[in-house]
Amino acid sequence: MNKTHPIGIFDSGIGGLTVARAIRKQLPNEKIIYFGDTAHLPYGDKSTEAIQSYAIKICNLLLEHQCKVIVIACNSASAAAYALVKAYVGSKSKIVNVIDPTVNYISQKYSNKKVGVIGTRKTINSDVYAHKITAKNNTVEVASLATPLLAPMIEEGYYNNTISHTVIEEYLSNDRLDDIQALILACTHYPLIKDEINAFYHSTIEVLDSASLVAINVKESLDAEGLLAISKNGSDLFFVSDYTDNFNKTTKLFFERDIELQEYKLWE
Amino acid sequence: MNKTHPIGIFDSGIGGLTVARAIRKQLPNEKIIYFGDTAHLPYGDKSTEAIQSYAIKICNLLLEHQCKVIVIACNSASAAAYALVKAYVGSKSKIVNVIDPTVNYISQKYSNKKVGVIGTRKTINSDVYAHKITAKNNTVEVASLATPLLAPMIEEGYYNNTISHTVIEEYLSNDRLDDIQALILACTHYPLIKDEINAFYHSTIEVLDSASLVAINVKESLDAEGLLAISKNGSDLFFVSDYTDNFNKTTKLFFERDIELQEYKLWE
Repeated sequence: MNKTHPIGIFDSGIGGLTVARAIRKQLPNEKIIYFGDTAHLPYGDKSTEAIQSYAIKICNLLLEHQCKVIVIACNSASAAAYALVKAYVGSKSKIVNVIDPTVNYISQKYSNKKVGVIGTRKTINSDVYAHKITAKNNTVEVASLATPLLAPMIEEGYYNNTISHTVIEEYLSNDRLDDIQALILACTHYPLIKDEINAFYHSTIEVLDSASLVAINVKESLDAEGLLAISKNGSDLFFVSDYTDNFNKTTKLFFERDIELQEYKLWE
Repeated sequence: MNKTHPIGIFDSGIGGLTVARAIRKQLPNEKIIYFGDTAHLPYGDKSTEAIQSYAIKICNLLLEHQCKVIVIACNSASAAAYALVKAYVGSKSKIVNVIDPTVNYISQKYSNKKVGVIGTRKTINSDVYAHKITAKNNTVEVASLATPLLAPMIEEGYYNNTISHTVIEEYLSNDRLDDIQALILACTHYPLIKDEINAFYHSTIEVLDSASLVAINVKESLDAEGLLAISKNGSDLFFVSDYTDNFNKTTKLFFERDIELQEYKLWE
């Protein structure tokens, strides 16, 4: 590993671009290599074994590009494949998932309080947030709710409108989330509806998206080992395993600037 | 081909079970082999080339099982891969898609009238219904609207509730669908919201799901060649390329009876 090497980021699709955007903001000198596994999107519906096999193959590609750190920018993949990927990659690269930075933050700040977690069925069924948070601080009460319609809704551009208001209100009115003091947005798509969620709660609770916490974690972790880039070394690369025009159009919603997706047929 | 051979049916997931159900109702003596490509679900987001390659591989499997007819029970796959699959399979099996039976019905019945089509982005962007209908009867006006949120909504069990009412009303209120005399449900998931759609229109227009038209087409086509089974020859088989408990639970919504999904790792 060397400070000129890139940061690798992967996701089932383009939602992980919210994490890429936060990393670029924190670390403007770093070169980013992004891989969106659009051929298998969404991971939220896939089995653990399927996600693990996809993650390993994507990591092989990112290791070929000599990534000094690999960010699993997807909650479903972080829940299903983090331990395996970490063991598989070993000392060749650092591995960061999107769950641990938020878990650490909540464990420190929300003793004796109740926090909510919303995400895909895969992430919520894994119960990974509740397990990790209570392992660090068993005074935190964690209430989890699967909200599987939110990711496709956002991906299709439905937010800040009647449809999104109805869907969000229906989900967040669930009794299970009564009296929470904070809500973890456990899906990389959800930063795009953070304002609507804040509006639902009249900003009375803390709504946490992992993107910025992950970016800070990556920065600290590279800094600790003297691996921060001093100047930008080449252009960012954005790969998808299946290219469609619609993905290309949608990237701007997530990354907030025009980027060019390149198809990389990893599965052929 | 032989009358004791099974009927093959495939879809990107479990939505095609609405077609399988209609076929089983029309043809109770036939053995069905169903393949749901849940590893790649939903096809609505995939590129044409990706869908074509998946369809060919699935047809290889169904041909190994000696299917006398293969039903492409998915609008996205019918639009993207029907011509290729037909050429590829040749005389080894008959190929039926979910589009043509509806196209024939509309062309005969709706001269000088306006009909609407709703479906996934993939199906609607292909404009396959408008092309095929106007090629047969250019006095029919076809208005198409992509309704990409409906399939994930139904798959997650959201129908006959506040969320589905809002989403359906928002889509069907689109100006483009003004003054239609019939609405084609161009996605195999939509039969599950047919009652809600009829309610939106107060049953003043004809709402057409392709499942029963396809089943009649399969029956007539087998009958014409003396290929109808006389008695049931073995149990139906239901394969998925990636198994999750949630799919298993959801099958009942689409097939209206308990079935057992078997995982068949076609992509390994």
